[in-house]
Amino acid sequence: MIVVMKVGSPAEEIARLDQELREWGLTPEKIVGQYKVVMGLVGKTVNLDPEQIQELSPWIEQVLRVEQPFKRASLAYRNGESSNVVVPTPNGDVVIGKHQAIAMVAGPCSVENEEMIVETARRVKAAGAHFLRGGAYKPRTSPYAFQGHGESALELLAAAREATGLGIITEVMDTAELDIVAKFADVVQVGARNMQNFSLLKKVGAQSKPVLLKRGMAATIEEWLMAAEYILAAGNPQVILCERGIRTFDRQYARNTLDLSVIPVLRTLTHLPIMIDPSHGTGRWEYVPAMAKAAIAAGTDSLMIEVHPNPAKALSDGPQSLTPDAFDQLMQELAMVGEAIGRWPK
Amino acid sequence: MIVVMKVGSPAEEIARLDQELREWGLTPEKIVGQYKVVMGLVGKTVNLDPEQIQELSPWIEQVLRVEQPFKRASLAYRNGESSNVVVPTPNGDVVIGKHQAIAMVAGPCSVENEEMIVETARRVKAAGAHFLRGGAYKPRTSPYAFQGHGESALELLAAAREATGLGIITEVMDTAELDIVAKFADVVQVGARNMQNFSLLKKVGAQSKPVLLKRGMAATIEEWLMAAEYILAAGNPQVILCERGIRTFDRQYARNTLDLSVIPVLRTLTHLPIMIDPSHGTGRWEYVPAMAKAAIAAGTDSLMIEVHPNPAKALSDGPQSLTPDAFDQLMQELAMVGEAIGRWPK
Amino acid sequence: MIVVMKVGSPAEEIARLDQELREWGLTPEKIVGQYKVVMGLVGKTVNLDPEQIQELSPWIEQVLRVEQPFKRASLAYRNGESSNVVVPTPNGDVVIGKHQAIAMVAGPCSVENEEMIVETARRVKAAGAHFLRGGAYKPRTSPYAFQGHGESALELLAAAREATGLGIITEVMDTAELDIVAKFADVVQVGARNMQNFSLLKKVGAQSKPVLLKRGMAATIEEWLMAAEYILAAGNPQVILCERGIRTFDRQYARNTLDLSVIPVLRTLTHLPIMIDPSHGTGRWEYVPAMAKAAIAAGTDSLMIEVHPNPAKALSDGPQSLTPDAFDQLMQELAMVGEAIGRWPK
Amino acid sequence: MIVVMKVGSPAEEIARLDQELREWGLTPEKIVGQYKVVMGLVGKTVNLDPEQIQELSPWIEQVLRVEQPFKRASLAYRNGESSNVVVPTPNGDVVIGKHQAIAMVAGPCSVENEEMIVETARRVKAAGAHFLRGGAYKPRTSPYAFQGHGESALELLAAAREATGLGIITEVMDTAELDIVAKFADVVQVGARNMQNFSLLKKVGAQSKPVLLKRGMAATIEEWLMAAEYILAAGNPQVILCERGIRTFDRQYARNTLDLSVIPVLRTLTHLPIMIDPSHGTGRWEYVPAMAKAAIAAGTDSLMIEVHPNPAKALSDGPQSLTPDAFDQLMQELAMVGEAIGRWPK
Repeated sequence: MIVVMKVGSPAEEIARLDQELREWGLTPEKIVGQYKVVMGLVGKTVNLDPEQIQELSPWIEQVLRVEQPFKRASLAYRNGESSNVVVPTPNGDVVIGKHQAIAMVAGPCSVENEEMIVETARRVKAAGAHFLRGGAYKPRTSPYAFQGHGESALELLAAAREATGLGIITEVMDTAELDIVAKFADVVQVGARNMQNFSLLKKVGAQSKPVLLKRGMAATIEEWLMAAEYILAAGNPQVILCERGIRTFDRQYARNTLDLSVIPVLRTLTHLPIMIDPSHGTGRWEYVPAMAKAAIAAGTDSLMIEVHPNPAKALSDGPQSLTPDAFDQLMQELAMVGEAIGRWPK
Repeated sequence: MIVVMKVGSPAEEIARLDQELREWGLTPEKIVGQYKVVMGLVGKTVNLDPEQIQELSPWIEQVLRVEQPFKRASLAYRNGESSNVVVPTPNGDVVIGKHQAIAMVAGPCSVENEEMIVETARRVKAAGAHFLRGGAYKPRTSPYAFQGHGESALELLAAAREATGLGIITEVMDTAELDIVAKFADVVQVGARNMQNFSLLKKVGAQSKPVLLKRGMAATIEEWLMAAEYILAAGNPQVILCERGIRTFDRQYARNTLDLSVIPVLRTLTHLPIMIDPSHGTGRWEYVPAMAKAAIAAGTDSLMIEVHPNPAKALSDGPQSLTPDAFDQLMQELAMVGEAIGRWPK
Repeated sequence: MIVVMKVGSPAEEIARLDQELREWGLTPEKIVGQYKVVMGLVGKTVNLDPEQIQELSPWIEQVLRVEQPFKRASLAYRNGESSNVVVPTPNGDVVIGKHQAIAMVAGPCSVENEEMIVETARRVKAAGAHFLRGGAYKPRTSPYAFQGHGESALELLAAAREATGLGIITEVMDTAELDIVAKFADVVQVGARNMQNFSLLKKVGAQSKPVLLKRGMAATIEEWLMAAEYILAAGNPQVILCERGIRTFDRQYARNTLDLSVIPVLRTLTHLPIMIDPSHGTGRWEYVPAMAKAAIAAGTDSLMIEVHPNPAKALSDGPQSLTPDAFDQLMQELAMVGEAIGRWPK
Repeated sequence: MIVVMKVGSPAEEIARLDQELREWGLTPEKIVGQYKVVMGLVGKTVNLDPEQIQELSPWIEQVLRVEQPFKRASLAYRNGESSNVVVPTPNGDVVIGKHQAIAMVAGPCSVENEEMIVETARRVKAAGAHFLRGGAYKPRTSPYAFQGHGESALELLAAAREATGLGIITEVMDTAELDIVAKFADVVQVGARNMQNFSLLKKVGAQSKPVLLKRGMAATIEEWLMAAEYILAAGNPQVILCERGIRTFDRQYARNTLDLSVIPVLRTLTHLPIMIDPSHGTGRWEYVPAMAKAAIAAGTDSLMIEVHPNPAKALSDGPQSLTPDAFDQLMQELAMVGEAIGRWPK
């Protein structure tokens, strides 16, 4: 934190401020320039709000933050080395990370019944997926819309896992349901709307299953990394960051704007692995292939794709789902790009 | 819901679609124009996603929604009459509504200790406030920042309530803490970051204390009303809508952009009473008086203002707090505008 | 500009950087702290892009701007004194400024014919307006929409000016039309879409009529003030800043979001007078009265209101126009708020 | 346009409205459903504002637009066939379009002097570029920043064209400078800030050089296509749409958010060819390779990349420029992705 004093600040005021900052537990390093005095604050500044310091004196012109507010999520925390998230599944460990082959997640928005989820699991497994996604608890804008089948859907996911060996990724919405979700899931998902549900973040951080953290619709990258920091600080180092589209002004033709630039940006800031969800990210299945290929070319570590045996009859998010046949076709297209950049699984 | 068919749609396809829509439980009313066929869907269309219908046939050009997705929150639900939220407090019932005097809420961001909260309560009571606000559980961007004193802070709020007779408004962040919060609060607050925490909404809707629902930082008005609908649908009719600033591109000089146009807009859509929070809405105490006066002139039913005895030392949100003296001064300015429009309390 | 060096930066690199910065015409003031070296750059730093400096050395951790990029528009430029814009009109000088009575501008979106513009002028004059607004050249999203009557409309504005003595405010869209617009206008308007049409800004800055500068739909306050700086730097000190609504995610119920917080924010940054346009700012006449009253309570120096004798038949922007009768009614409501804060014209 | 009447609308009101709509030159097709009456408006509805119609009667519940507002830019206008833009250059015709090899544009933000522009041109030509970009007139946020060398820079571009045979792409900012820019440019660029400078759009539409139309920072896709429509309607069919990043909330790590989803979205709406500019789109050269590869994988028709011989000393936009060596390297990486999807030039 750097405090810039106004031109002409009285020496007594600078001394008083120095004293007050020491009472806050900081060590101000005064540096006297030709015109202005600047104070560098040494100590535990990571939690300080620059505006609180600014209020300490009317002679303060500006307070500038120098440090990043996230620590455990930072690339520096691992000395520039990226981290892997390793997920044990019946088919073996799946490793998600910058130097790994791309991990594929596929499945329906919601778990509807045993036949559809097991059949979808078989199809996406055959096409090359490593994980089955599927919602048991669904965040829906309307209280009158289908809210997910809850615990019984978790059991159907277990059946699909047993039938195919795929790992299971499913969302938790309430701290009260975390135990049951974590029992069935191989990866616990925190949805975009809960990215700053800090109670939930603390609790998924206090259990041991890997966590898929979706970016909030209007979240900055720093806020997203701070949400990851909550999980890491609570003791769980296994966090995957999932971009799923941000809100922008144009929602007439695409539901969200998939922000692929997070891939190169996150690489400079964090060691955590990255997933891209082009299905929610665009909201329309027609756009999914182009954006999935783009995500691979941009360097994503994993992809999450919605697949539904009959999208028109899906209980939720039908319009953004591919059919299993379309997913087969997509996997072939993705392989061409993935092989060109050397990251397609054998 | 209106389905617009493409020019030249085959009669058999229209018949097939008609049949399929009936299987969905809808009654399509076909209306044959000169060039295009349009189908009006009658039935429970409120939960339908227009895009799901669009997928039913490649001959569908467009699906247009005609109905509002919120019911209980709508102005029509009460035949155009606004509703009051009545809050019993030791000082008597406070009634918040369109035809009432403006209700004033004031207090610190966080409850820090007994002296500060009781003293602040006395001062804001003396200045004319009806409610004391103060956080026991605090949503903070950083896991390393002060998270609130929790249950012990609730007890301090009870002490301040006893000392002054003011009603208490405090935030709940986790379904697991709802019982204890509702025990101490006269109004339970759902914060902006939890506006779409649907589990929490359902549970605050299933208890009996009035709910203050803050608008999410990037929420549309429809999403906000749908969040209120969750609470209303769960059985609690006592909801106050609180605008607290939305995120826009300019965060250099103001933390958020206070959207006062919600006042006239909400009046045309909903019967629920409105509160404005210019402290979070701007993030800087210097801007609070102008925006508080503006909110009154625009017709708000209540105001929430942050007041702290020593903002520079506040554990959270100091920069947006007024001192008790500044609050005294503000109340006099507000009275001038409030009296001019005939809504200032005697 | 402050350059923060990384921990452990070699002395030779700091010396080399010092040398290179001197070649850029800057005087670096090196300040050696306990852990880090920080360099304050003295000289013409206002035009420097912090990122360009960052590229000078891989040992630079961060470059922080200390100075505001606008000079002539800044409050400091006039030592904290606000400026007035004085507009000579047939009815006498109208003075727009922080310590003046509120100046009222009213009229239709477009000039349609002589009868409508003269009649509207008479009505708004009678209700208390000081200026007539009306578009001769109209920026329209569609090339097939009415583009304004151009030069002949300017002559009709002149007729309305002669008939009523009101000053004329009208928009210029093209540098090629500036001479003719400036001949007829008392205040030349630069529209929101042209806020960063830098060629146009330079040329309105090089003529002598006062300029009304509307804020761009997605412009930050700093960008808006930099646009004003273009006009001021070109030699024209008479600039009024007009907020007309910014784009946010909710465009279902209001066309734009009127950002009234610019009023207190601009007061801390600039000496220039402020106008608020609640008609474009909301896009719906029903919302105009609430927001116009709010603007006055928040401290605006002037208001611009769309008034049309028959909004349903207006060639442009009918939905946001008031009828002359509704404007009469509005002026009475505004007077109550304006008098309460002591700024209503006698 | 579809007019939805309220339940219970009186027959006389519907008849009156029918009459009034006919006076507007429309043919209302009344369609009587079980509960509601809906009117389909036939005729020139493309220029109508739905809100203007809504004002015609208090019994109108809603007015819904069915038609797209752009015609010549629409995919339907060419019966689903994409169009090519053919640009004659000294090295031969370059064809930009969906079924063509990817066209590469490279060069500095600004033309600084003859040596730098000719040398840059040689390097990017050698690496495989088809066009040289370089600004003679520069839109800059600050009036004190370098504004471009103007006409003399155009002559330097001509020298680079002669030396290398590359086509020239350069920006026009003012209608008064269009003739001179069009004389030197092979493609005339309209910048993001001028996307809704309608006077400029009309005039570039009235000359014969192809036009590169950048998307505005906060423009919707519909607004962008309407801006293209201005050019097409004025008679120039040669328009290339260039995405260069939109403004979102995160500007801390990337200057803009490159919206690659425009590629699949535009393919469903328009026949016009697409260019992606990852340099402005991210604002940081480190992010350019990832996003350039992603753009190719997503199906762009052309790429624009900033290249500068010495980015740290660039007069503008240094931080987003690659060195010629980095560009050589990038072209090899792009070739791998481009060949995988079958669109890399031989």
